Formats: sequence, structure tokens, C-alpha cells
Amino acid sequence: MTLIACRVDGRAETRISVLERALQYGDGLFETLRVCDGRPQHLQRHLTRLQAGCERLRIGGVERGPLVDEIRELAAGVDTAVLKLIVGRGHGARGYGIEGCGPPRRILCLHRWPQWPAERERGIRARICETRLSPQPLLAGIKHLNRLEQVLARAEWSDPAIAEGLMLDRNGRLVEGTMSNVFLVHGDTLVTPRLDACGVAGVMRSVLLDCASALGITTEVRAVEARELREVDELFVCNSLIGLWPVIELDGRSLPAGPLGARLQSQLEDADNPVETNWYPE
Amino acid sequence: MTLIACRVDGRAETRISVLERALQYGDGLFETLRVCDGRPQHLQRHLTRLQAGCERLRIGGVERGPLVDEIRELAAGVDTAVLKLIVGRGHGARGYGIEGCGPPRRILCLHRWPQWPAERERGIRARICETRLSPQPLLAGIKHLNRLEQVLARAEWSDPAIAEGLMLDRNGRLVEGTMSNVFLVHGDTLVTPRLDACGVAGVMRSVLLDCASALGITTEVRAVEARELREVDELFVCNSLIGLWPVIELDGRSLPAGPLGARLQSQLEDADNPVETNWYPE
Repeated sequence: MTLIACRVDGRAETRISVLERALQYGDGLFETLRVCDGRPQHLQRHLTRLQAGCERLRIGGVERGPLVDEIRELAAGVDTAVLKLIVGRGHGARGYGIEGCGPPRRILCLHRWPQWPAERERGIRARICETRLSPQPLLAGIKHLNRLEQVLARAEWSDPAIAEGLMLDRNGRLVEGTMSNVFLVHGDTLVTPRLDACGVAGVMRSVLLDCASALGITTEVRAVEARELREVDELFVCNSLIGLWPVIELDGRSLPAGPLGARLQSQLEDADNPVETNWYPE
Repeated sequence: MTLIACRVDGRAETRISVLERALQYGDGLFETLRVCDGRPQHLQRHLTRLQAGCERLRIGGVERGPLVDEIRELAAGVDTAVLKLIVGRGHGARGYGIEGCGPPRRILCLHRWPQWPAERERGIRARICETRLSPQPLLAGIKHLNRLEQVLARAEWSDPAIAEGLMLDRNGRLVEGTMSNVFLVHGDTLVTPRLDACGVAGVMRSVLLDCASALGITTEVRAVEARELREVDELFVCNSLIGLWPVIELDGRSLPAGPLGARLQSQLEDADNPVETNWYPE
């Protein structure tokens, strides 16, 4: 058990009602934050994405101020940890209708930091998943609780030496990793898939795009054909917890851990200087 | 509040752990049964679909015998009610991986019977939703907990005079209602959409297909273009709770409540003779 502390609607509590819509229909959103030296990293970006998700799902009444206070207070008690926030639509009558639901439920779980092998920062092995992502523009970009595609994709392999699986859409385009976003390097250009039909617009993805911009690196956010994976100069995955992991082997084929990923990685390590620009998922 | 009774893993309990995967990722399944005179209707069909869902999601360890006993025991205490069963994958470590998860969690909620207007059995008004269903063959047919598409579709209207919304896939083909399956009548032929790419293979849908077969009615389970809705002789929706509701108005256009729906409806009312053949979702 990795749970350090848990709050439901501000109270120390580890259980919720079975009538919560997040349980009944996956009707809610989540954020997974890295806590470092007692501070939640990139908190404003996480809350901005959460807000975008609430607007998309029409979940009203999530106030940013008290949420910030609560997250900061919970994080303050630990050194390094994972802080997961779930916002559900709250109780409702039986059935899909959202009228009369609420108020929204907020669940904050503080988990022990996972001990990933240290060498992953120098490079990981990855695979391409058979599970394809379905296009659903109404849900694309936001981090909602309907995650069965990711569960099925992650269940495709059990070899612990494989750290991540990349997912394609139904047209064979690269979208993301099961738990990460993905970047390709072609020459001097950094490329990441657009996420207007499926995928989660990750906070670390936005941080890296801003870092690249600050470093004067040309970036492209566009449709990425899977065949481009055979021609990349570098490939890496990222999320809020792992930062950036270079992919040095994809389905058994070796890839170089190149200079551009290393530059971005060292930029990320400058934890005292988080890039906190305005940001909104596409 | 419509809840009469609730059990979690066999114990009288209305709360579950926040670490339950059904909450974290919508990683689970559900069934909604009608209880009539203290007996769960079409129980074996519901449990067969549940089992198919468990196999698809690789949720092991759900034993049918104890589940049947528990459902029958809970239903025995009431006259008419709704019995909702949720099966979640259980606890897991943080992250999408399913290794080490479980045992599966079972949640049984008994709800008061909803008081739908009686005239709905003679006909309802329906609309065509703008929210499209995404194709995902890995999840098609089963009744999993990732239901945001249905939530968004149902949120499109608030007029209580409209009882159901029909949903199309991304290619403009008719799939189902937000909470029901749909049947069209062309002449003497009963047609219902195939559900190999999306949609829930409803228990009442299977009951009606068997009823139609028993009555010698020609049935077709096939792709249905939305334009066929303009040419139908009859249209109706069904689910385990409502039975069969004829659609007598679709997006403001009148439709006849014809003889074939009426024949099937009266067949369904023969509650002492439930059709319980072997059945498996496609």
C-alpha cells in the first residue's frame, strides 16, 4: 500500500459513497502531481487543465482557491511524493442525466514516490501497443476518468524491462504513451502529436513545449504517422512524475538518446525555475 | 435519494475505498436489473453479459454462484425495484497496470422503482444526439463503466417531454439510445444495429430478438444508416427497466406506434415465461 494520506472534500477520509458518479460512470477528472520538497510541481498548469476538463464535462462549482490551499497543505508534510486529485461530478439520481447532480466531490490522495530504476532517466525500452485509441473530440485533451483504453493497452505486456507502450489511433497515427506524452526529434525539430481527436494534453508536455520554445528549438504539434517512428533521430516520453525518459529501444530496435532530449532534461532539473506560463489544452 | 439497500462484497455498506479501480479509471462493469415481485428479471442473461465483460477486461475471480445468491436475497425483500450491480477490478497499485489488482469488488445497490409516466409505454418523443459514439471494438457490446459519451449525450437536452436520445457513430450510423437499444421495423422485418464497433449489447435487446424469433418475425442485425430512420414503419427503444417504448415522435416528426412493437410488448408482459436461452453479446 502506497497511500500516505487521503482527503475527501477536505476531510481525512479514505472512502466515498457508491453513488458517486465518478464510480458509477467514470464521470469526472483527475490530475497526478509530483510533490518535491513539500511543494506541488506545476500546480497552476494542473489546475488549468482541470478547469478545462470541468468546462468540457459541465462540472461546475470546483473553486480553485480552496483547492490550491488544500493541495499545498497536504503536500507540505512530505518530501517527495505523488499527489493524485480526483474530481467527480458528485451524487446524482440514477441514470446518465446531470441535472441535480453535485456538488462535485474532490478526492486527494498522497502516495509514496515510486522507486523507478534510476537508469530510466538515461533511457527506456518501449513497445507499440495493439490497443488503438478511439477518436472522440469531445473528450480529447482532458484527463477524464474513462481510462479503459489505457488499462487494456498497459495489460498487453508484463515484461518489467519495458517501461512504456506507445499508442496509435485507428488511422495508425501516433498519439501518446499509455501514461505519457511522446516527442520525436527530426534533425533540429521537436515534434509531438496533436491531440484534437484523442489523447491527454499532459502538463509535462506543455512544460517541454515551453522549454523548447525558451531554448529556441523549433517545435511542431501535428499529426504524426507511425512510420515516422522508424526515421526519428530521438524519441522520448514524458509525464509529470517521470519528467523525461529517452526511448532507447522501441520494439527491439535501438534508438540513440540524443542531445535534444538531454538539453530538455537538464532544463527540467532546474526545479527552482518552473516554467509557469498561461497554458490551455488544445 | 432512491437507495433502498446497498452491499459491498456482501456486507451492508454504502461506501468504498478511493483506491478502487472502478473509481480511479472506470475499470469495471455494471448491470442494471429489474426486480419484479421480489425476483430479478433475466438474471442469467445479465450474468452472462457480465462474464463476457470480465473476460474482455481480464477481471478474474467473479464467481457466479455466490453472486446469484446475493442478488436473489437482496431482491427478495422488495416488490418492484431497480437492482444495480457494479463489479470493479478492486484495489491496485497506482498506475494502469492490472497485475496485483484485486480481488474484484462487487457493489449491489437496490433503488426505488422510477415513476415513469405511464403513457411512455404507448409512445415517447425522442431526439437524435449530436454526441457521436467512437468505435472501440475492444469495448463494444460490454457494459463497462466508461460512460462519458452517454453522459455528454444525455446532457444535450433537458426537456422532460423527450424521453430518449438516439446516438450515431462517427460514420453516421445508428447505434443505440443513451440508455437503451433501438429497433426499426421495415415492413415485416425487425432491424437492430450491429454492435461490433460500439454500443452496449442490451439484455432486453437479446430478449426481444428471441421473442421475435419465437414469433416467426424476420430479424436483421446489421449496420443501420441514420437515413433509414426517415423511412421506418415503426421505431422503438428498449432496456431491462423500461421494457419496450415505441418512439412516436423523432426530432419533431411523427411516427406510428405500429403492430409489431405492440406484439413484442405484449409478449414481454408475459413475465411468467421469461425467455432464457443461451445468449452471448456479439
